[in-house]
Amino acid sequence: MDAAALWQRYQDWLYYHEGLGLYLDISRMRFSEDLVATLQPKFDKAFQDLAALEGGAIANPDEDRMVGHYWLRDASLAPTPELQEDIVTTLEKIRLFAQKVHSGEIHPPDAAKFTDVLSIGIGGSALGPEFVADALGGLDAPLHIHFIDNTDPTGIDRILTQLKDRLASTLVVIMTKSGGTPETRNGMLEVKHAYEQQGLNFARQAVAVTGIGSAFEKLAKSEGWLDIFPMHDWVGGRTSEMSAVGLLPAALQGIDIDAMLAGAKEMDAATRVPQLKGNPAAMMALAWYYAGNGKGEKDLVMLPYKDSLLLFSRYLQQLVMESLGKETDLDGKVVHQGIAVYGNKGSTDQHAYVQQLREGVANFFVTFIEVLEDRQGPSIEVEPGATSGDFLSGFLQGTRQALYENQRDSITVTVPRVNARTVGALIALYERTVTFYASLININAYHQPGVEAGKKAAAAILDLQKQVVKVLKEAGTPLSLTDIATKAGAIDRIESIYRILRHLAANDRGISISGDLGQPASLMISAID
Amino acid sequence: MDAAALWQRYQDWLYYHEGLGLYLDISRMRFSEDLVATLQPKFDKAFQDLAALEGGAIANPDEDRMVGHYWLRDASLAPTPELQEDIVTTLEKIRLFAQKVHSGEIHPPDAAKFTDVLSIGIGGSALGPEFVADALGGLDAPLHIHFIDNTDPTGIDRILTQLKDRLASTLVVIMTKSGGTPETRNGMLEVKHAYEQQGLNFARQAVAVTGIGSAFEKLAKSEGWLDIFPMHDWVGGRTSEMSAVGLLPAALQGIDIDAMLAGAKEMDAATRVPQLKGNPAAMMALAWYYAGNGKGEKDLVMLPYKDSLLLFSRYLQQLVMESLGKETDLDGKVVHQGIAVYGNKGSTDQHAYVQQLREGVANFFVTFIEVLEDRQGPSIEVEPGATSGDFLSGFLQGTRQALYENQRDSITVTVPRVNARTVGALIALYERTVTFYASLININAYHQPGVEAGKKAAAAILDLQKQVVKVLKEAGTPLSLTDIATKAGAIDRIESIYRILRHLAANDRGISISGDLGQPASLMISAID
Repeated sequence: MDAAALWQRYQDWLYYHEGLGLYLDISRMRFSEDLVATLQPKFDKAFQDLAALEGGAIANPDEDRMVGHYWLRDASLAPTPELQEDIVTTLEKIRLFAQKVHSGEIHPPDAAKFTDVLSIGIGGSALGPEFVADALGGLDAPLHIHFIDNTDPTGIDRILTQLKDRLASTLVVIMTKSGGTPETRNGMLEVKHAYEQQGLNFARQAVAVTGIGSAFEKLAKSEGWLDIFPMHDWVGGRTSEMSAVGLLPAALQGIDIDAMLAGAKEMDAATRVPQLKGNPAAMMALAWYYAGNGKGEKDLVMLPYKDSLLLFSRYLQQLVMESLGKETDLDGKVVHQGIAVYGNKGSTDQHAYVQQLREGVANFFVTFIEVLEDRQGPSIEVEPGATSGDFLSGFLQGTRQALYENQRDSITVTVPRVNARTVGALIALYERTVTFYASLININAYHQPGVEAGKKAAAAILDLQKQVVKVLKEAGTPLSLTDIATKAGAIDRIESIYRILRHLAANDRGISISGDLGQPASLMISAID
Repeated sequence: MDAAALWQRYQDWLYYHEGLGLYLDISRMRFSEDLVATLQPKFDKAFQDLAALEGGAIANPDEDRMVGHYWLRDASLAPTPELQEDIVTTLEKIRLFAQKVHSGEIHPPDAAKFTDVLSIGIGGSALGPEFVADALGGLDAPLHIHFIDNTDPTGIDRILTQLKDRLASTLVVIMTKSGGTPETRNGMLEVKHAYEQQGLNFARQAVAVTGIGSAFEKLAKSEGWLDIFPMHDWVGGRTSEMSAVGLLPAALQGIDIDAMLAGAKEMDAATRVPQLKGNPAAMMALAWYYAGNGKGEKDLVMLPYKDSLLLFSRYLQQLVMESLGKETDLDGKVVHQGIAVYGNKGSTDQHAYVQQLREGVANFFVTFIEVLEDRQGPSIEVEPGATSGDFLSGFLQGTRQALYENQRDSITVTVPRVNARTVGALIALYERTVTFYASLININAYHQPGVEAGKKAAAAILDLQKQVVKVLKEAGTPLSLTDIATKAGAIDRIESIYRILRHLAANDRGISISGDLGQPASLMISAID
């Protein structure tokens, strides 16, 4: 395609949202008009699916649930007055709670004000809040936020060491739908222990975000926690950034949650337009479909050219991969769908792996995110007539061009600046794109059946650990792995037993191993006191 | 394969390094003995290649360079006495400099001691130092480190705002081989400007790590910087963590650089063994070859189950993708090689995208990194008999098993704990694996020809910007994009001109745009004062 034709294609496919100042450019995705025509019936269905979903249809048939995260940005769309009321009330409650924390009206027992927030959650209860905190949190925030998003003891210790001198003024927010997520439960218990070690009253500094009626809500109530915010069953974890999960930590940091909601609402409205051209989420879904042949054959490399958007790709890993990575489609056909997502930021990543992107395996497409405003205030010139921001902008253009020349396709999203409104809009844009794309490929984007197997296997490992420790204690003498496995009635699981024992022995847990560590069959294991 | 056979395979292929306490398990990669036999001649050649490379052969023929990063860990291996002397002297210089900074013997003009380090560099001059700081840096470090690794003005401002009150006691380390990397140069100029704004003497707080004889060295000398450390031309950026690039920031943070070097040296020695079984890097290269059919057909998902190893995958993106992502092989044949790398940490990532890994597109293999020691000191029980660390360990085992059951392969690397020695060993293990794998697929792992195109295109954009601004100033009246492009003699580059102007207009750079922003052809652009 010559330069003039390419410029025409750029203009033909350019999407611009005036209210948000947001551009979407899919001209560097080499789809044909034929593909667009072929997909038209699928898009017609996708527009209908979305309308039904927003109207309260059971869009997640496996779990018999409505999918209502879009209502959070516009309560009037929720299908019943009760739901509408619930959304409005929760939002007002979040605003008021944050305000009282900031003013000191709500304060810890031993300090005049809270200084820090410690957010404990994982997956959907961490990735959104972490992204938003990094993108929008200021150094002058009224409260500084910290995250425990794993069950790694060293990781927990690192955070608790950072907060050691401020634990008495740290507000803990624990997010878990049922209380059944072990990582979050463990984080809570470890943190609670640290509070108790310092003689602090954990309950008076703790807030729960949880399912109403859940066991976790009961716990929080019975212990007299500061407050409880709802996690609705019609909001999935990976689309919960605009629920209390995302909004409470954001509001506590002084982030303008109303602007974030407004940005998302505007994008929601823009992506209700039932025409491909003129609907940015539909256009992006088209580009994804084209890139991976509707089968996820290409990875999505996210390259925001802005440091503050570094965590967007981690957020999108969950939103995209957990939504789309499915074994079967809605008709039960085995499809092994998905789109792998990775990336950090430009131009930094140019110095890491653009070499492979330009010359190596052509198994990806790129999304550039361009931010027009370089910084607040003027810039110095680093060369005559050029600023640091000009270089950043030039690198984005240069990389996009160098990739295109080598038949590597890209999408470019342009926003005027990174603020609460554009971050809200970006989140909504990707949520909607996932919704459309899921419809194109006919999958349920709202369940995650594949996550259970690993959880079950992990629970079985912990059960096996108990058995094995019991066997060793009862034996009273050193045993080989085969002996232990036989006595535990688990000869088929001898490798798991070996790995459990290796871990226990490394942590002074009353297990001693002797023999050649490189030869598991040679090992003799005993329980010690 | 039944449980007994799998356990046998596990033991047959288990690698254990006694000195490092490191295990490598490739039993869950389903390669056959036939493949091993077929690849044997390639491995024989790989062992020869490595010996030649370590002996000082020109392993990077395109750039006519030796590849000597292995000598950094054992100077006695360097091929000449001068090189040996240089390595030893530089190392001693780093130790001494850090010691003097810690003691206050070297101190800033206006403070008794340096409190912070600001490291400016990108790619190989950032990813290693960032990974090591996050993995090993303590909260009680003698100096706290910060990084500028991009030319994003907002990103630079964020760091400078953090350091505002401590700039007078911040040591700036600027790392650039020639001084020709614009991101690093820009970062330096922005930081220098901030020092000047505070009336500080930048040169008295600045250190260069750069090529001896480079323009940048001359600059640092002429301005009287505190010190200069060498960047050798036989060390590539992506393998420079054990050179001054990695060791100087680490030493300043109080990290045990001798332990890091010792760990790498032990791993280097272990990976000189010229037999596949018994050489962990060769074994890992076999697993990579099997996974992607020697063509990078599968992505490498890195899942360290330890928060402090979160940045390892970002470090490996450069090491693996920039080394292996090549268009042609050593015979000039077009091959489009590479292996895409992504991942963050477990169990956190289980809640993000294990859904797709287990059920979705089967376009990846996983590397689990297991750390046996949960934490320093005892753990509380979160359930009877179980700690947070037991859960982390159980999740790793459970996920590995759940993936294997669904024909998703994985490698597991086990280390006793995360410390300087094991981090050094892990870096060396992956450097060596890349070296072996590059030999198996017959590519030059030490150049990056594909990076130039984007840089050139970016430079052309900045030139075009100057032209366009000139055209607008000379015109004195509003012009359409077509007018501007014609007057600039660049009608083929009208889209680039449009994007340049859009960026300038957003930054109060004397450009005004009117018309319908969604219709580039409608726009009228003028220069304003």
